[in-house]
Amino acid sequence: MVDSRWTADPAPSASPRRRGAVLERAILDAALEQLSTVGWNGLTMEGVAAGAQTGKAAVYRRWPSKEDLVADALEAGLPSIQEVPDHGSVREDLLGLCRLVRDAMYSRPGFALRSVLHECDTSTAERFNSVILDGLVHPTVRLIGEVIRRGITRGEVRAGADDAYVRDVIPAMMMYRSKVCASEWSDLDLEQMIDRVMVPLLRTPGE
Amino acid sequence: MVDSRWTADPAPSASPRRRGAVLERAILDAALEQLSTVGWNGLTMEGVAAGAQTGKAAVYRRWPSKEDLVADALEAGLPSIQEVPDHGSVREDLLGLCRLVRDAMYSRPGFALRSVLHECDTSTAERFNSVILDGLVHPTVRLIGEVIRRGITRGEVRAGADDAYVRDVIPAMMMYRSKVCASEWSDLDLEQMIDRVMVPLLRTPGE
Repeated sequence: MVDSRWTADPAPSASPRRRGAVLERAILDAALEQLSTVGWNGLTMEGVAAGAQTGKAAVYRRWPSKEDLVADALEAGLPSIQEVPDHGSVREDLLGLCRLVRDAMYSRPGFALRSVLHECDTSTAERFNSVILDGLVHPTVRLIGEVIRRGITRGEVRAGADDAYVRDVIPAMMMYRSKVCASEWSDLDLEQMIDRVMVPLLRTPGE
Repeated sequence: MVDSRWTADPAPSASPRRRGAVLERAILDAALEQLSTVGWNGLTMEGVAAGAQTGKAAVYRRWPSKEDLVADALEAGLPSIQEVPDHGSVREDLLGLCRLVRDAMYSRPGFALRSVLHECDTSTAERFNSVILDGLVHPTVRLIGEVIRRGITRGEVRAGADDAYVRDVIPAMMMYRSKVCASEWSDLDLEQMIDRVMVPLLRTPGE
């Protein structure tokens, strides 16, 4: 028996047979694409399957519901915030972190997440809110704590500043001004917020 | 002709004929009551009219749509925040103000407003968001500015603290922690936020 796999000239195909992680990635991308174009209410499992050039069964095999699929697509798509470079300056470190947060908020999955929250019902919204909390808010608060503790060690930041309320100020300001002032957080906005709020809040008295 | 108005014993009536402001108030109260019990989607002009013991025409004469009626009911019902007593201490003044804001957030119209925002569509949400902004957020920010300027005049607060970013910290923290931490803002929570964030942020350097 001749194995022709390596010699046959395969017909070009727009839908090559993909498996595992590659197919999964294509489905998650198609779900984000659908969210951005037709929104939560318009998104269907059929539409996602078509967008990923696969069958509906391949989607349902992995995600039993539209909610599960979208939660995974948003979680996988949201830029991950894992660490913040140490510039030796609390101002620069916080600015760097704020830029990462801003870029995640205004990424395609970030936009999709906000519009989904407007469209879906309350129980679904809770699920998607937890994607924001676990994917963006909690990592940010943890890293702000690291930056503050590095500043305390350097003597740049007052000892009492490693506090839950203090760590919440940046995410609170970013959420509030996006909602209330429709701020898009330019680099200048971020610098002003850090210089006018965080630097005076954190500095050691007498400086 | 004998005028019997003052001598006749009128039959007791659950629905006396009311006009103007009294009837208007009854309709707005009934709308808030409906919002609290059946929510935005369940509220009907007929239900509100029945609750106010009047006819549907009396409601439609004043408010052409459910959205107009609910916006007015929320606006009229939300506790108004007009001034903050001068205790001669920025800490006490801000605490007093935060308690007013917290009480408005957790008033019946405050609860109704939040649940309506979860239920209604995006364009209606914009209208109701402006009730929160005009009725609660903007007055609060204006009063925080007053408290800060009083503190600067007394020499208790640093000169640069009368700043738009600084004035936004309290409403930002109250909105964020209600949403993200489901904080109900006890008196202790408010004191901790003021003592750990606002006092260090506002004080003159060297104190």
